[in-house]
Amino acid sequence: MIILHHCMSARSFRPLWMLEELGLPYKLKMHDFPPRLREKDYLQVNNLGTIPALTDGEVFMTESVAMCQYLAAVYSEKNLDVLSSDLGFSDYINYLHFGEATLTFPQTLILRYKYFEVEERRNIQVAEDYAKWFLSRLKSLEGKLSGKEFISADRFTAADISIGYALMLASHLGLSEKFKPEVSRYWKSLALREAYQRALLVQEKAAKEQGISAVPSPNIR
Amino acid sequence: MIILHHCMSARSFRPLWMLEELGLPYKLKMHDFPPRLREKDYLQVNNLGTIPALTDGEVFMTESVAMCQYLAAVYSEKNLDVLSSDLGFSDYINYLHFGEATLTFPQTLILRYKYFEVEERRNIQVAEDYAKWFLSRLKSLEGKLSGKEFISADRFTAADISIGYALMLASHLGLSEKFKPEVSRYWKSLALREAYQRALLVQEKAAKEQGISAVPSPNIR
Repeated sequence: MIILHHCMSARSFRPLWMLEELGLPYKLKMHDFPPRLREKDYLQVNNLGTIPALTDGEVFMTESVAMCQYLAAVYSEKNLDVLSSDLGFSDYINYLHFGEATLTFPQTLILRYKYFEVEERRNIQVAEDYAKWFLSRLKSLEGKLSGKEFISADRFTAADISIGYALMLASHLGLSEKFKPEVSRYWKSLALREAYQRALLVQEKAAKEQGISAVPSPNIR
Repeated sequence: MIILHHCMSARSFRPLWMLEELGLPYKLKMHDFPPRLREKDYLQVNNLGTIPALTDGEVFMTESVAMCQYLAAVYSEKNLDVLSSDLGFSDYINYLHFGEATLTFPQTLILRYKYFEVEERRNIQVAEDYAKWFLSRLKSLEGKLSGKEFISADRFTAADISIGYALMLASHLGLSEKFKPEVSRYWKSLALREAYQRALLVQEKAAKEQGISAVPSPNIR
């Protein structure tokens, strides 16, 4: 049985969304954010104390985008992976990485220095530097998405989940008002997917059942 | 012909190292850092103006770790890739991502706010927050590397290049003195590889020939 450790709307939302796309059975373990401070027991699962963590038998993973790529590759009856022999492979892996390293990490600086740090450690300059940084990197996405429904291989893949989560986080941070037309259209279409909507409901229901606050808590890692 | 756009010792060092491991023919185009400000023509190649960029016929990529995975998968006579059916696949993709998202991005905060920004925009608190962050994330690597020569699949793969570059950058930033024994041993062994040493020589020679300053300029993206 696949077990996913998750905080509300944190990066672990990516594999949760993927699991719903694939229709696989799994157990969702919710945690208060940040678990490394709030649940010492969680260090037994992941000695970094970070979210996400995923186990699947002997498999143990900590990177949300890698989890999506793993699940797509290993349980891919529904074709959410792109093989190295397929056209679109280079885009697929490029945008898997782009969604996290280029589009998500900069937003964690906004979260940290605008919201999560104690008052005297907050820093509006750094938060603004990385809001600007994030929006400038969306430029290449705007061109790439022109006339396209999906980011790679002309079909929905794990790369759309990688980028989709970055756009979800941006919408939480009020940055989606600044999306250009193609990115805005793409984001709206992803957010309408049944599996995305199910993942939102699943995390709320699990939080309630497990006594976890249902306030979104994106992970600053 | 593969063309790689590179700044001295920036993230683009990853695909350069990979090209040397694979023994492929390629053209290395050196740029002064940061190219988006120094070479307006470069925007024709990559509209973000960032390094790296790699072209291979119709293929165009901007993420350094994705380039390594692409090169390994498509030109893998030397087995630097791990297939989804292989033992070690989940580690392989997890550590490909870990090397960039978890180990490299935090170091760019140190570069930016300790060295690259103009005096009045520097911020030692942020640089220290992310030095601490980086070193805390090495903890999981220390355990994982215990008794092992490579990070996944019991052989050298693209994942070792992903992490190896993060450790190279850390050594430029003076953080390698704080490596624990297993990480330190692993880093020394990677840095002794012939292809790594060749990549260092190749970038110096190319910088000289192309009239680019040979001072290392890791990319703050």
